[in-house]
Amino acid sequence: MLLIDGKKIASEIKQEIAREVQQIKAQGGKTPHLAAVLVGHDGASETYVAGKVKACEEVGFTSTLVRYEDDISEATVLNTVNELNNNPDIDGFIVQLPLPDHISESKVIEAIDPKKDVDGFHPVNLGRMVLGMPAFISATPAGIIELIRRYEIPTSGKNCVVVGRSNIVGKPISILLSQKTYPGDATVTLCHSRTRNLNEIIKASDIIIAALGKPEFVRADMVREGAVVIDVGITRVKSEVTKSGWKLIGDVKFDEVAPKCSYITPVPGGVGVMTIVSLLKNTLLAAKCEIYP
Amino acid sequence: MLLIDGKKIASEIKQEIAREVQQIKAQGGKTPHLAAVLVGHDGASETYVAGKVKACEEVGFTSTLVRYEDDISEATVLNTVNELNNNPDIDGFIVQLPLPDHISESKVIEAIDPKKDVDGFHPVNLGRMVLGMPAFISATPAGIIELIRRYEIPTSGKNCVVVGRSNIVGKPISILLSQKTYPGDATVTLCHSRTRNLNEIIKASDIIIAALGKPEFVRADMVREGAVVIDVGITRVKSEVTKSGWKLIGDVKFDEVAPKCSYITPVPGGVGVMTIVSLLKNTLLAAKCEIYP
Repeated sequence: MLLIDGKKIASEIKQEIAREVQQIKAQGGKTPHLAAVLVGHDGASETYVAGKVKACEEVGFTSTLVRYEDDISEATVLNTVNELNNNPDIDGFIVQLPLPDHISESKVIEAIDPKKDVDGFHPVNLGRMVLGMPAFISATPAGIIELIRRYEIPTSGKNCVVVGRSNIVGKPISILLSQKTYPGDATVTLCHSRTRNLNEIIKASDIIIAALGKPEFVRADMVREGAVVIDVGITRVKSEVTKSGWKLIGDVKFDEVAPKCSYITPVPGGVGVMTIVSLLKNTLLAAKCEIYP
Repeated sequence: MLLIDGKKIASEIKQEIAREVQQIKAQGGKTPHLAAVLVGHDGASETYVAGKVKACEEVGFTSTLVRYEDDISEATVLNTVNELNNNPDIDGFIVQLPLPDHISESKVIEAIDPKKDVDGFHPVNLGRMVLGMPAFISATPAGIIELIRRYEIPTSGKNCVVVGRSNIVGKPISILLSQKTYPGDATVTLCHSRTRNLNEIIKASDIIIAALGKPEFVRADMVREGAVVIDVGITRVKSEVTKSGWKLIGDVKFDEVAPKCSYITPVPGGVGVMTIVSLLKNTLLAAKCEIYP
């Protein structure tokens, strides 16, 4: 069994990005600049955005944080999006989700210039991805693809199950792993709450992507010997062992599943830590105009 | 075994559209108007476009055909797209594919205003479809969904195999049948040239969508008793029986597969005849501003 070390890979990629930023600056180029819009004071959102700002500093990007209170109007947010679209110094930006109920998330996302949509949530980027065109791919699926690539895990012709059909993980990763490329060329089955023979499908799979958000759902008896297991689940549960009183649990019962796997991602330290790196990579791509030349 | 009569359904839908157009006109509304851009003299393209123009007449739409020779420049085509985008009388338009090699199809498609993209080929419409948002859905997948709906074929929790991962059929229909809706909620496996155990997967499926373009590929021994078979393949082969000297063959060996099925589409007269109807439906939706209010 080989542990897929997301932390190590994430750190390597950050160093690669930092090096490239140094080169760009040394050649007199513009420093990549990521902006984030944060509405309200949701605890998780605050943490995520702070992590993104910190990661920008680590790799030498400029970052800008635009903050609004919960009661900001949709029009103001849309206006901010428009300003960021038109600000030539901003290479890419994100609007941290969720937004308050009175603001339409899809309206805000569709207002973002696809060229600056480094979260990859705009329908144009999703559609381009489906078509196999250059696109900003959202953080979690991009992180999974990167882990598979760095560990050179074979995917062509493999039977792959994706459990969970969310817009930001299940659907895009199922499409990416089906594409005629590497990583890809897998035979992907997308499972969800209505799937009848889920255990049977998981058991028959060479690659298992667990993204259903049910802690420790995947157990040893459901996994075939030698399977590759990618655990996307992150559920915070109380713990008497940790200092914080909380711990993170994945969708896979790691201790019993790991011995059967050829590769497995831990939680934490697996897919989760890759997401910020994916955002940084997209921002660099945006700064270099590589997706939309 | 129940034959899915695409011809009958297509004719019913055309009558429904014609009735709605009459009502719109009776209330003093604007007649829906579809434009088609045809470059060159490809035989199949000529036939398709002529069929589309004729179908417009049948349901009471206005249609406009813009024709160019093979040597037209990309800039001129893009300019025409721009004019059609800005022409308030045109509700929707298509650029018939394929285009000559010197014209970038993706550039032309991305230049179309998504609000008028009644072929559903623009990445925005594909992305919106993936996200479950209102979208123009391309003709073949929309036709399949409509046949399933009209015949009230159960899909929730069914194991469905889609054979073929093309951008205009395999990928979109696999996404649509996975969505949390009806028709949908199926457990979909997307198969392709790299799939290793294709026969086994087909044999285990309740619903088989054959869209690989290999005549009579699916045979009786590959299909389980009671399966639903949707045949998207259309290959023209020589025939000594027909007057034209040609006949159309599907991806399914109909004579031997049909007796095992609960439902099956014939070729011709199945999915194929639904495509023009899907285009008409999209044009009506565009005229009524239902997708993009």
